[in-house]
Amino acid sequence: MAGGGALSGNAAMPETLIVGGGLIGLAIGWQLAKAGRSVMVIERDSPAASPSGASWAAAGMLAPLAEVGFNEPVLLALSRASLAMYPEFVAELEADAGQPVGYRTEGTLIVALDNDDAAWLRRQYDFQQSLGLPTRWMDGNEAWEQEPHLAPSVTAAAFAPTDHQVDNRRLMTALREAFARAGGELRTGTEVVRIQHDGDRASGIWVRPSDDAGADPELLEAPQLVVCAGAWTRLLMANNLPAPAVPPIRPVKGQLLSLTMSPLLRLSYVIRTRRVYLVPKLDGRLVIGATSEDVGFDTRLTAGGLFELLRDAWEAVPGVYDLPVRESWAGLRPASRDHAPVLGPTPLAGLYLAVGHYRNGVLLTPATARLMCEFLLTGEVPEAMQPFGLARFHRRARMHA
Amino acid sequence: MAGGGALSGNAAMPETLIVGGGLIGLAIGWQLAKAGRSVMVIERDSPAASPSGASWAAAGMLAPLAEVGFNEPVLLALSRASLAMYPEFVAELEADAGQPVGYRTEGTLIVALDNDDAAWLRRQYDFQQSLGLPTRWMDGNEAWEQEPHLAPSVTAAAFAPTDHQVDNRRLMTALREAFARAGGELRTGTEVVRIQHDGDRASGIWVRPSDDAGADPELLEAPQLVVCAGAWTRLLMANNLPAPAVPPIRPVKGQLLSLTMSPLLRLSYVIRTRRVYLVPKLDGRLVIGATSEDVGFDTRLTAGGLFELLRDAWEAVPGVYDLPVRESWAGLRPASRDHAPVLGPTPLAGLYLAVGHYRNGVLLTPATARLMCEFLLTGEVPEAMQPFGLARFHRRARMHA
Repeated sequence: MAGGGALSGNAAMPETLIVGGGLIGLAIGWQLAKAGRSVMVIERDSPAASPSGASWAAAGMLAPLAEVGFNEPVLLALSRASLAMYPEFVAELEADAGQPVGYRTEGTLIVALDNDDAAWLRRQYDFQQSLGLPTRWMDGNEAWEQEPHLAPSVTAAAFAPTDHQVDNRRLMTALREAFARAGGELRTGTEVVRIQHDGDRASGIWVRPSDDAGADPELLEAPQLVVCAGAWTRLLMANNLPAPAVPPIRPVKGQLLSLTMSPLLRLSYVIRTRRVYLVPKLDGRLVIGATSEDVGFDTRLTAGGLFELLRDAWEAVPGVYDLPVRESWAGLRPASRDHAPVLGPTPLAGLYLAVGHYRNGVLLTPATARLMCEFLLTGEVPEAMQPFGLARFHRRARMHA
Repeated sequence: MAGGGALSGNAAMPETLIVGGGLIGLAIGWQLAKAGRSVMVIERDSPAASPSGASWAAAGMLAPLAEVGFNEPVLLALSRASLAMYPEFVAELEADAGQPVGYRTEGTLIVALDNDDAAWLRRQYDFQQSLGLPTRWMDGNEAWEQEPHLAPSVTAAAFAPTDHQVDNRRLMTALREAFARAGGELRTGTEVVRIQHDGDRASGIWVRPSDDAGADPELLEAPQLVVCAGAWTRLLMANNLPAPAVPPIRPVKGQLLSLTMSPLLRLSYVIRTRRVYLVPKLDGRLVIGATSEDVGFDTRLTAGGLFELLRDAWEAVPGVYDLPVRESWAGLRPASRDHAPVLGPTPLAGLYLAVGHYRNGVLLTPATARLMCEFLLTGEVPEAMQPFGLARFHRRARMHA
């Protein structure tokens, strides 16, 4: 490629274009780049602004046990597989990026503060046990000895020793660095206007600077397009793509805040109740979350949202009362109709999805990156990924067609 | 003064130097400048930063009735006199500054939400009545009809029709403008290092840029120095002045937050309970305050502080639950030992005080400006100002001397 006065148009084009520079997009890009692919990630946020996606807003829990739902056995398998990959994923990433990501393995205490809580917790625990999950029941005294900052009113707890956590913001910063070091290109401050396609095959994306809605869009072409656009996936895809190519993703708002822990109150376990979680970070932040609100793309903090977080956190760990407030924010979880991610092909050749990770995006990042890379490199959908195809949402419609 | 190559040092010196560009300092400066004095106001905050003093942090209530204490009859007289000056003060200021200050005269509803509240409110009301104050008792239904956004659980209310409010931030902006238009000079971003004195007479202040602690201080001289430094008065004066010249002012922290009212919830009355107040501003802000904490110069927001404000506001006006949070902040009230202001001379000739307005600085601004101007122009302490002299804190000490 050296020399010559003109560049061929395709010479600068990547083999894979990823839309969305959150955890999922960056992790896929990093792994693809390490496998030798030329990869470009397109990110709407500019580096100056605080990232707007769920990757940044999340609390960073890796909690397949605490988050397990009664109707989600397939998702539980993927979640546990991804959790099992975490130590190796973190070691590889920290080595590649040359920076720590705040991975903590103390575990999670799910606590009950009254009799209603205890009945709820017992049902959760019995279900976890029926699945063979390694949670351990504690009475109130045991729980209080395990974590003396808990309210004295704690009546019971389930300890989930394998529900770990990571600093999702550090994870994102590290992924950016590792992706760049692997040769990937990140274009920030770039908005995708629409996906270029001919009805059968997608061939590129039209982009413009995020801060200039009047600019003429530019076409970026690539043989593989991967959409990792989180809660904004539908807005991006629904305007000009055939309906069967569009995954049913909606935003679910979460409000959070963080406090600054003191030498007198420095938690190590993640604490969860029926209503709130408290996630202590290695840098001294205590992240408290989160509301769950179906209100579209509204990300405003509300009096009621902050009130309930503060009340519920204070009821679980009374000592938080005196801690300084550090930050408050809201984010949008990308929820699919069945709350499981949407991974793999679409009806359009060349267009692929890794979206809809809902409450589990941080946890599912390693498994998603590994499965999607295998798929994008080989063209074969790995067996573990097959339950998460887009087609599951369109089966009924097709039967009626 | 025209012509010539060198300026005389004194030519640029003002007749009156005011330390502190909050409401009190600016209002005194504005009135003095209008009376023909040359005045300079020294303000530590730079224009780029959000003001740090109580003038900006306050909620802007003008509430001599609701704030009346059982042991403060002299303060009540000054407060009522200042309230009576407000319409004229606002009219003159808005005309001079060419901008509105959000003065509202709908009045204040002091409400009881349970039986304990009602007993407390009844004692307050009986005391107000014994002083001949124009509060009016309402049962729960009357209160709820007066303000349908109140919680249905409201059991009683006292309506204080003359407890008005103003937008204290607009007031401050307008005072800056009016002061400048009257010929006054405001030096922002300037810290006072110490007061220059010879033991009997103060003659100037040493200043340096607030953002450059290593700069050589510069001496500003003036025949009259007026300290209006709010909660920071003691820090400024105690290091090199004789003890009898230093007023006993301490900071009392208040945490506040503001919500954005919606078309469905737009209050007009100020609402107060035993624990919280809600102050609706003309620009759509609903200011909620305030904690009262003796914790020195700490201005951090805390989980407990915000939690209690949000809870208490929600209990009084349940509809606030859905309102977006706009801002949260903390300020320092300048409290003297008896909670009344300290106005007038000190034992040092040329050094004067207008400090210690505690919870009532916005309310007491017009009276303070008028009385202090009269005093600074004539040298005579007006009768209405005599109860507020610094000497009241040193009488006992002198008797023992």
